[in-house]
Order: sequence, then structure tokens, then C-alpha cells
Amino acid sequence: MEIKENGEEEQQIVNPWKVEAKEGGKIDYDKLIDQFGCQRIDQSLVDRVRRLTSHTPHVFLRRDVFFAHRDFNEILDAYERGEKFYLYTGRGPSSEALHLGHLIPFMFTKYLQDAFKVPLVIQLTDDEKCIWKNLTVEESQRLARENAKDIIACGFDVTRTFIFSDFDYVGGAFYKNMVKVGKCVTYNKVVGIFGFTGEDHIGKVSFPPVQAVPSFPSSFPHLFSGQDNLRCLIPCAIDQDPYFRMTRDVAPRIGYHKPALIESLFFPALQGETGKMSASDPNSAIYVTDSAKDIKSKINKFAFSGGQDTIEKHRELGANLEVDIPYKYLKFFLDDDIELAYIGKEYGAGRMLTGEVKQRLIQVLTEIVERHRRARAAVTDEMVDAFMAVRPLPNMFN
Amino acid sequence: MEIKENGEEEQQIVNPWKVEAKEGGKIDYDKLIDQFGCQRIDQSLVDRVRRLTSHTPHVFLRRDVFFAHRDFNEILDAYERGEKFYLYTGRGPSSEALHLGHLIPFMFTKYLQDAFKVPLVIQLTDDEKCIWKNLTVEESQRLARENAKDIIACGFDVTRTFIFSDFDYVGGAFYKNMVKVGKCVTYNKVVGIFGFTGEDHIGKVSFPPVQAVPSFPSSFPHLFSGQDNLRCLIPCAIDQDPYFRMTRDVAPRIGYHKPALIESLFFPALQGETGKMSASDPNSAIYVTDSAKDIKSKINKFAFSGGQDTIEKHRELGANLEVDIPYKYLKFFLDDDIELAYIGKEYGAGRMLTGEVKQRLIQVLTEIVERHRRARAAVTDEMVDAFMAVRPLPNMFN
Repeated sequence: MEIKENGEEEQQIVNPWKVEAKEGGKIDYDKLIDQFGCQRIDQSLVDRVRRLTSHTPHVFLRRDVFFAHRDFNEILDAYERGEKFYLYTGRGPSSEALHLGHLIPFMFTKYLQDAFKVPLVIQLTDDEKCIWKNLTVEESQRLARENAKDIIACGFDVTRTFIFSDFDYVGGAFYKNMVKVGKCVTYNKVVGIFGFTGEDHIGKVSFPPVQAVPSFPSSFPHLFSGQDNLRCLIPCAIDQDPYFRMTRDVAPRIGYHKPALIESLFFPALQGETGKMSASDPNSAIYVTDSAKDIKSKINKFAFSGGQDTIEKHRELGANLEVDIPYKYLKFFLDDDIELAYIGKEYGAGRMLTGEVKQRLIQVLTEIVERHRRARAAVTDEMVDAFMAVRPLPNMFN
Repeated sequence: MEIKENGEEEQQIVNPWKVEAKEGGKIDYDKLIDQFGCQRIDQSLVDRVRRLTSHTPHVFLRRDVFFAHRDFNEILDAYERGEKFYLYTGRGPSSEALHLGHLIPFMFTKYLQDAFKVPLVIQLTDDEKCIWKNLTVEESQRLARENAKDIIACGFDVTRTFIFSDFDYVGGAFYKNMVKVGKCVTYNKVVGIFGFTGEDHIGKVSFPPVQAVPSFPSSFPHLFSGQDNLRCLIPCAIDQDPYFRMTRDVAPRIGYHKPALIESLFFPALQGETGKMSASDPNSAIYVTDSAKDIKSKINKFAFSGGQDTIEKHRELGANLEVDIPYKYLKFFLDDDIELAYIGKEYGAGRMLTGEVKQRLIQVLTEIVERHRRARAAVTDEMVDAFMAVRPLPNMFN
């Protein structure tokens, strides 16, 4: 069986621009781990995080949402020795309204920042979106600022967090690292990793080093001057793995640690788990701008049910939790392990109906979306400026 | 006859990395003009420059050293209407000592700046040299500063000239233009223009936009803010034409004028006119660091003579000025048209001997090199900082 380096194997395609399960099926995450060469996060790793941070691990870690990693153990080894690290995550600002899937890496990153008390850099790849989506520079930058407000609304600590737009920040030490990375990666290599063709423009070919270099502390001289040995941990969805496979390949050749990764699966579409949610179909996702009424209507109308066709059959056979979207969404967002286990048991046994589970999900999501909306409304332009100012971070390791 | 876009046709190869005549021959500049699609500079254009500037045109213009152009007439049209323009030239800082060939574009650019009273940006492509020559970032930047001293020694006016290192200056508006250019050029296109292969690293593929964007005034917001219509004239050796063919192709698609070009032939090696001088063979060129003794010895020993084998034959047949390097070098550097004509006549008729012509050339070059050495010794680090400071230019159009 031929496995291509860009994640294409038979029909399962996972790369930064496309997430597509085999026809009619779900993403096979075990196969993806094999293809990409990362490791599964097991219970002992979750327990180790609990012990080291004295925090209950985030629901996304307890429930295998962040399910794969590269060298996360080494980050924890270093942390245990008293060394610190920094977090790097990012977002390509392609659309005005974020959906819940977009928030997942940020919710998780906030937890990591709080639990480990480490600095965080958040890259807004407005250049990438200008390159791929045919947006103007100005529109990409406007979207970057709008998205920054949603990110800030997730509760990041301004004394530990630097948010930057590539269009504003690329240059100096960052650009020098881009050149160093570019020198280590042949065109054939990026074709293998990303599937570029000769008809792709060179803006695309030039971009991978931009996403690579925030993994290196020297790209942020105002933060990590003289700390070239500082390790980096990247929380992201697994479709970003190709960028960081490339980065990890290059890192030791230019004198840096390989960045470690902690990778999530995709938040499924309302219609079912065949990929990640699509910004082009508003009915496939719950947006942070959806009203309580929108949420209720979308879940009742579109959330794919694993329940049976008739109440009688349902009482007899129970729901198929493997494909049931309301239950899956609760696994992401219902924090209470006991309640989730109860719902799973009752629903799976047919004693609870889809309507009841949807009802609970509507409550949970409405609360999250309302909380987000309130938090975002409180984010001022001055706060965005404060997060994006090129400055030292006063509470970096406190 | 197949003519490749990258300037390869049969054995004549002219691109930014290779200048090679057909075996045993000279560069065929007429053919190059055809291949590249530029225009020859004719007497009426030289006369027009004389009229518009009220200056005697530079010896390099009078004697076809700058022999080709693109849209230079349009620059002069605009100038005649009272519009200004700016000059852009550059240097890839690859070696510590410059040879006379390296100085030619700068000597000519200084003349243009003085004659037209226009601002000038000089790009030091330290990133390019780091990418191609496997120099470290630090070494490339050190060489850039060393080369800047040689450039400043050519007499540029600090109130009209901005010198920048790519490693220091790439970012902001400059980077935004790089992305805009990158979006307009496919990988296949750069393969056609520059001959890249799949084994070339993506640092190379990413570079052409870096050399392109100083052609656009918005890349220099501290100089040309709000003057996006300002035209750009690029004096350079003709091997740089591929970069600017690409740039001219892109310019109108992103809202800028096509930059105009004025292009020189290559300063021949001492051994004869089969290409441009090579930094790897110190005996092929006169360096600005050569002592008077070095110059004398190199010219006497290595300068290819078009004179005859014996004095008798020489008196009878005269020198072949078409291949005679001492005479060719005088055409570049002996300012006095009457004396040059006299030497040409006497030497060509056999009344003057190679030794006498070499003697005169040694005087001329020793004087130029000595003058350069004195000027360069007077260039302080503070002066380099002043030329390279990101600042408005007070005398831009005065």
C-alpha cells in the first residue's frame, strides 16, 4: 500500500487545505497517526499532565479530542526538570464568524497556558489567507483583527500572550529564520508534503517557512532573547501536521529543538463525522454569532442522530453513539464526566431519546456561545492593540 | 531555433547566476536584446538625455556600456512633463573585495542621480547571498555593510540615497508587496525564467519577489508615501533582466507602473571578452583593493592584447581593437573622448604599441583605484548607519 507523504492514501485526504474521509466513511485517525508518524496520547500521558500541573486535565485531553502528539513527553520531561517552554498556535483568518471547531485549539491552548504558566504566541496568518483565498492584503488584515477579538475572548492573559499578524510582524529575526528554513527544504520536498503543482504560484511555495518559524524562540527577540534553547509546544488540529513535520525536519539543522506538538481531531459537522466543519455551508456548524434560536433550530434540524427510526425500535436497540452527533458534541463541550457517562449509558440503552439529548446539547452550546458573545463584545480595539504590541511579556514564566 | 525564456540558446547563457558566451566566442549582445526583448540605446536617446539634463552624458552612456533599455523613453517623457522618478539598483554582497566591474552600475547610477536629481534606493541582497552562496546570515550581513562602504565611496548623496539590507528591511509594506508579487507568478513561470529545478530549495524560489518589489514605491513608505504612481528606473547589468522581466509582467496587475531599465554589458575579464569577470579568479580582474603594483603587474601580465606578435607585424597590421582588452578597458574608464579616439587610431594603425596602451591604462586604473581607496577609507560606520537609516530623504527631488 502506497502512503503518500502529503497524507493522501486511497481516498482519505488530510492536509492544511483539505480534510476528506474515504467515501461514505469517517476520518480514520489511527491510520492518520501511522501515516503522519505521530504518537497517540494514552492514559498515562494524561495522568502525567494531571500530576505535573496539579490541575484536572482539560476535557479535550481527558476525552481524546487532543489525541495525538509529537515529543509532548519531552516537553513534560523538561518541565519536570524545572525548564519552561512556550506555546505557539495560530489561525488563518479566512472568514468573519468563527464556528465552534475554530475555538477548540484556543480553548485548549488557554488551558495549557493556565496549567503550565507559560508564554504563548498566536500567529494570524493573514498572508496565507491573502495567498490562498484571493483576499486583498487589507481585507486579510481586517479579518485578522476581527478574529483576534474572538481569540482574546477565549480568556488569554495579556501579560503572557503575544498575538501577531504576519503582514505586520514578518521581518528582522523572523525573516532571517524564514530564509534559514527555506534553505533546508527543496521544492520537491514541499511538493511531497503539500502537493503543490507547477501551476501553483510561488506565494504558496514561499509560505511554509512563515508557519514554521514561530517554532523557534529567536523569531521573537522581544520575548526570548538569548533563550534559543527554549522548547516550543504547538497545540493544533492534525491537518496542520504537514507544516510541522517539515519544521521538525529542519529544526536541528539550524540549531533549534524540534517543536513538540499536541494535535486534535476535527470537530465534526452537524451532518456527521466525515470531515471537519465547512465555513462554506452555514448549516454544517454552530457559529459563535448564532442566536439561541439559530442554535436550537440547527441542532434540531441538522444534527445527525444515531437514534432509531421509531420510538419502539429506539427503546429496544438504543442509539448508535458512534455516529450520533448530539452525543459527540456533548463529549466536546459537556464538562461534567458523570453526566456525560449517564447520558451515554441511558441514550445508548434506548432509555433516553434523541430529542432529550439534543435539548441538553442546545443548553450547553447556547451557554458557551452566549458567554463567548459577551466576552467578545467586551474586547476593545485597545485590547487588541495591547495583545498585538511588540513588547516584552511581564508575566512570562510566573 | 528555440529560444528559452531563461536566456539559454545554444551555448550563450545569461542569467543572474551564469554569464557564458558560446564556446570560444564573445557574448552576442544583439542576440541577447532579441532574446530578452529589450531595446538598444541609440544616439538619439543619448542626445535626448544630454538635452534634458544639460549634462554631458556619462562615458558609459556615450560608449554603449549601458547599451539596452526598457521604457527609458517613457521615463524621459515623464521627466520632460515635470514628473519625477526614482532610481533603484542593488548588489548581492558575495565577496569582500569589489572589482571594477562591480563599480560600473554604481558609478553610472551616481551620474543618473546627479543629472536628474532624483532619489535612489540601493538594495543589498544579503538574503540572496545567504540563500545561494551558503553564507550564514551574520556573514552575509557583515559583507553587506562592507560592500555598502564601497558603494558610499562612489560618492552618493546621503540626503537622496537610502541603502538597505534585505535582512534588516524586509517586512511591513515591503513584505506585503512580496506576497502580492508571489501571487502573480506560478512555479512553472519561475522555472521558465530562472531555470530552477525540483532539487533547488524553496529559499531560491521565494527570492525573486524580494528583488522585484523595490520597483514599487509603496515598498518604501518612509520615502514615497502616497506616491504610488511614481516611476522607477533600474540601472543594472543585463544579467539581472530576468528578475525585471518578471517584475514588469506583474506590475500592472497589482496597480503599479512597470519599472524602466537601463542595462549594461559585462565588463570583460583581463583574459578576454568571453563573459564577465569572475570573483573566483583574482587574476581575471582589477580589484579596488589592488595596489598600484598589483594593477601594473596584472595588466602587463594578463590583459589580453590585440596587438601583433612582432613589432614589425604590428607596425604593418596594427592592433585588433575588437579583442584588445587594454583598449576596451580604456573605453570604459578613459573619460577623454579625444584621447581615446587618438589611441584607437594610432594603436589600430600599428603606430602605437600594446605596451604604450597598457602603460596609459595602468595610469588610468591606478588613479581610479587610488581615489576609490581614499574615499572608502573615509567612510565611517556612522556614515553607513546614516545611509541605512529608515528615514525620509530631505533632498529627494531638489
